[in-house]
Amino acid sequence: MSDKKAILVIGAGDATGGAIARRFAREGYVACVTRRSADKLEPLVAQIRAEGGEAHGFGSDARKEEEMVSLVERIEREIAPIEVAVFNIGANVRFGITDTTARVYYKVWEMACFSGFLMGREAARVMLPRGRGTIIFTGATASLRGREGFAAFAGAKHALRALAQSMARELWPKGIHVAHPVIDGAIDTEWIRENFPQRYALKESGGIVNPEHIADLYWQIHKQPRDAWTHETELRPWMEPW
Amino acid sequence: MSDKKAILVIGAGDATGGAIARRFAREGYVACVTRRSADKLEPLVAQIRAEGGEAHGFGSDARKEEEMVSLVERIEREIAPIEVAVFNIGANVRFGITDTTARVYYKVWEMACFSGFLMGREAARVMLPRGRGTIIFTGATASLRGREGFAAFAGAKHALRALAQSMARELWPKGIHVAHPVIDGAIDTEWIRENFPQRYALKESGGIVNPEHIADLYWQIHKQPRDAWTHETELRPWMEPW
Amino acid sequence: MSDKKAILVIGAGDATGGAIARRFAREGYVACVTRRSADKLEPLVAQIRAEGGEAHGFGSDARKEEEMVSLVERIEREIAPIEVAVFNIGANVRFGITDTTARVYYKVWEMACFSGFLMGREAARVMLPRGRGTIIFTGATASLRGREGFAAFAGAKHALRALAQSMARELWPKGIHVAHPVIDGAIDTEWIRENFPQRYALKESGGIVNPEHIADLYWQIHKQPRDAWTHETELRPWMEPW
Amino acid sequence: MSDKKAILVIGAGDATGGAIARRFAREGYVACVTRRSADKLEPLVAQIRAEGGEAHGFGSDARKEEEMVSLVERIEREIAPIEVAVFNIGANVRFGITDTTARVYYKVWEMACFSGFLMGREAARVMLPRGRGTIIFTGATASLRGREGFAAFAGAKHALRALAQSMARELWPKGIHVAHPVIDGAIDTEWIRENFPQRYALKESGGIVNPEHIADLYWQIHKQPRDAWTHETELRPWMEPW
Repeated sequence: MSDKKAILVIGAGDATGGAIARRFAREGYVACVTRRSADKLEPLVAQIRAEGGEAHGFGSDARKEEEMVSLVERIEREIAPIEVAVFNIGANVRFGITDTTARVYYKVWEMACFSGFLMGREAARVMLPRGRGTIIFTGATASLRGREGFAAFAGAKHALRALAQSMARELWPKGIHVAHPVIDGAIDTEWIRENFPQRYALKESGGIVNPEHIADLYWQIHKQPRDAWTHETELRPWMEPW
Repeated sequence: MSDKKAILVIGAGDATGGAIARRFAREGYVACVTRRSADKLEPLVAQIRAEGGEAHGFGSDARKEEEMVSLVERIEREIAPIEVAVFNIGANVRFGITDTTARVYYKVWEMACFSGFLMGREAARVMLPRGRGTIIFTGATASLRGREGFAAFAGAKHALRALAQSMARELWPKGIHVAHPVIDGAIDTEWIRENFPQRYALKESGGIVNPEHIADLYWQIHKQPRDAWTHETELRPWMEPW
Repeated sequence: MSDKKAILVIGAGDATGGAIARRFAREGYVACVTRRSADKLEPLVAQIRAEGGEAHGFGSDARKEEEMVSLVERIEREIAPIEVAVFNIGANVRFGITDTTARVYYKVWEMACFSGFLMGREAARVMLPRGRGTIIFTGATASLRGREGFAAFAGAKHALRALAQSMARELWPKGIHVAHPVIDGAIDTEWIRENFPQRYALKESGGIVNPEHIADLYWQIHKQPRDAWTHETELRPWMEPW
Repeated sequence: MSDKKAILVIGAGDATGGAIARRFAREGYVACVTRRSADKLEPLVAQIRAEGGEAHGFGSDARKEEEMVSLVERIEREIAPIEVAVFNIGANVRFGITDTTARVYYKVWEMACFSGFLMGREAARVMLPRGRGTIIFTGATASLRGREGFAAFAGAKHALRALAQSMARELWPKGIHVAHPVIDGAIDTEWIRENFPQRYALKESGGIVNPEHIADLYWQIHKQPRDAWTHETELRPWMEPW
């Protein structure tokens, strides 16, 4: 397998996850990207290859333990050691408390937190013997405080932050850099464009986060020498009130 | 049903939950206490009755939606309106990240967080039409930060805190007081006595939290007039380092 | 001097400080209250005496080290041991950063923070040999985060919080209870009535904090047994957004 | 004055401040560095020039308003517009509360906070008309929490953080990027080498922060496009417990 190195991006959607995969691919990493449906990954994989990089798309349900375990094993065995693992699945829903069904509350946690636990644990498992690696969990404002209508989403994001902190304190001294960047504010996605057109109109003046700039931050975190590691940091547009 | 008022305590163990139930019973509230097994509630119910209070024990699995729904309905219909609901189930386990099974991670969340969501939602449902009530979720140090070995427990407690915050911001303006006291430090329980005898030896000098004093805090929170409500507060022994 | 016990309230204005002094006086404490000008204290002292309590007013500039030192010495020598010391001076001004003069920046810190340091230190000095006492610093929202226009005020309040935390960690294990309640939201004062009439109109429905309820909280904190001490807590009206 | 751009570093000591100045000088910025005594700046200025950069040393007492005002005016008039201003003065002292003199408490605040206010305000003044610029205040662990013995130092650092937050909320929407990186852990300085030799022995294995890596972070913050700005971030060695 020579000296190839892989980045695993769980939740490589059109925006953030995709930009991160492309960024690391440009730096020579083999991009292993996942979504629930492999079909939707094809444009991203094609784009990375067109840019001269190596990419592999995996249809994989991140909430299923056996799928996560076999995904990580397969990449390690067939492609390259996973040097970087990025968890990037959100599940931003909004319901008043009495309208939040048990099913929604569970599903949001399963998607935005439990999947992250599975990825984090499996990444740690293969990185620990090498004493090296970077694990990044994407945070949001809801990671830091609850808000009306966000009992489910903020719960999942808070729990993911607790996971990142607990893993950092355990794994940093073993050489694994666990980080939790908090992205605060609208990101340039199809979804924002369609649902928040007024907001989207601020794109030209820097009111919407460009996923490429999130990718830059993740790259910087990964490149930090071990005497100067960041665990939590934050990113928001200049005009975002906070 | 006259003018009786009930307190529901989910997780009325030997220590904190039991002390809270007794305290409110002494103030005239009907104590409705739950544990998974009704048998274990008998001494508590007997004690409250011996002190002249009214108490009812319910064997109920707080993780089961239908059980929580019917429990709340039954108390409201047969006993008294629930003026106060207290969630007091913990699940303090400690495992390194690679030793944390998916089952443990899920079970800890289900017990220490999902059950709290069910109680909070059902309590809100019956309190909202009355525009009044108190809902208290018991927090711990793990509610505020992760630590090596606490990915599962801190995750559940963080998510519970997000629930409490989200509910407070939604329900305070509707007259319902949601609070999240954080108890930091060993509580005087059977479990501490057996497992941490050195710690327990500090009891006489105030090194271990007396559950009665937690109950005092919960009573004070419940009695706060609505111009002066506390959401988060903290309690620890004078000699607890923090 | 028999078994009398004193409470020292630095900054006993018409609202919070005065209410605290009256509350503790009703509980049997000798209220020693200060303001820069002794004249303005007369109504408060008269009211406490009319309610059957003992009170002494001191015109004292809390920013002057020698005045604070001699004030504490004099109370201890002539009146009673100081069991409780409360720092309650604010200095809520608002200026954009380029309009904040060096004089304003310094004066706000001197009044709202440096005075608190002087009181805290002198109170600690007399309490340490007794291994007992309560020191409370009144916090505000600006203690927790900065905001446009609040560089000076938030700076002073943040520094006061750091003082309270540092003193708590040093003095709790020596038996002195240091606490930092954060009062968030408008308090029922002359100033709010005159300057924010719309806000003041919410008083009847509980939209403005009643100083008596702050006094209740301070009394509860002081009465906590040492196995269950609160350091930071918060209080706000039910309709206060946060 | 062509298109030169200046960075002002207040407190350009041997370690962090000097490394930042050199880094920005390598990127083409004119380094304007200050310390109380100009003599001590000579090696830094010489080093920057030897590396092909432009540097100017200023003996200037950052605590004196008139000196800060005239320093900023002079740089703007004679050298280049200040695009970046970095405040880097600490004052890490440790005293128990009753051993903290009023003079120490004041001096620590004056040096580590009031100077920062003066720099921040004067930098804002010249940047506002240009609608552009970066202002960075160096934080420490004491910016986030108080600790036994750190009433004075934590007070100054907390107040500096409040300044950074207040300025960010006011100035971000006006195009000025205000940031507050928190450096947690020992930095590679003469002082650590002499006073904490055991700690210093960890340097080879990454246990001590290399000032060059702090400089990298500051450069990255300055280069962030305005849709993706960081306000607070943190940096610590991989083996630093937190």
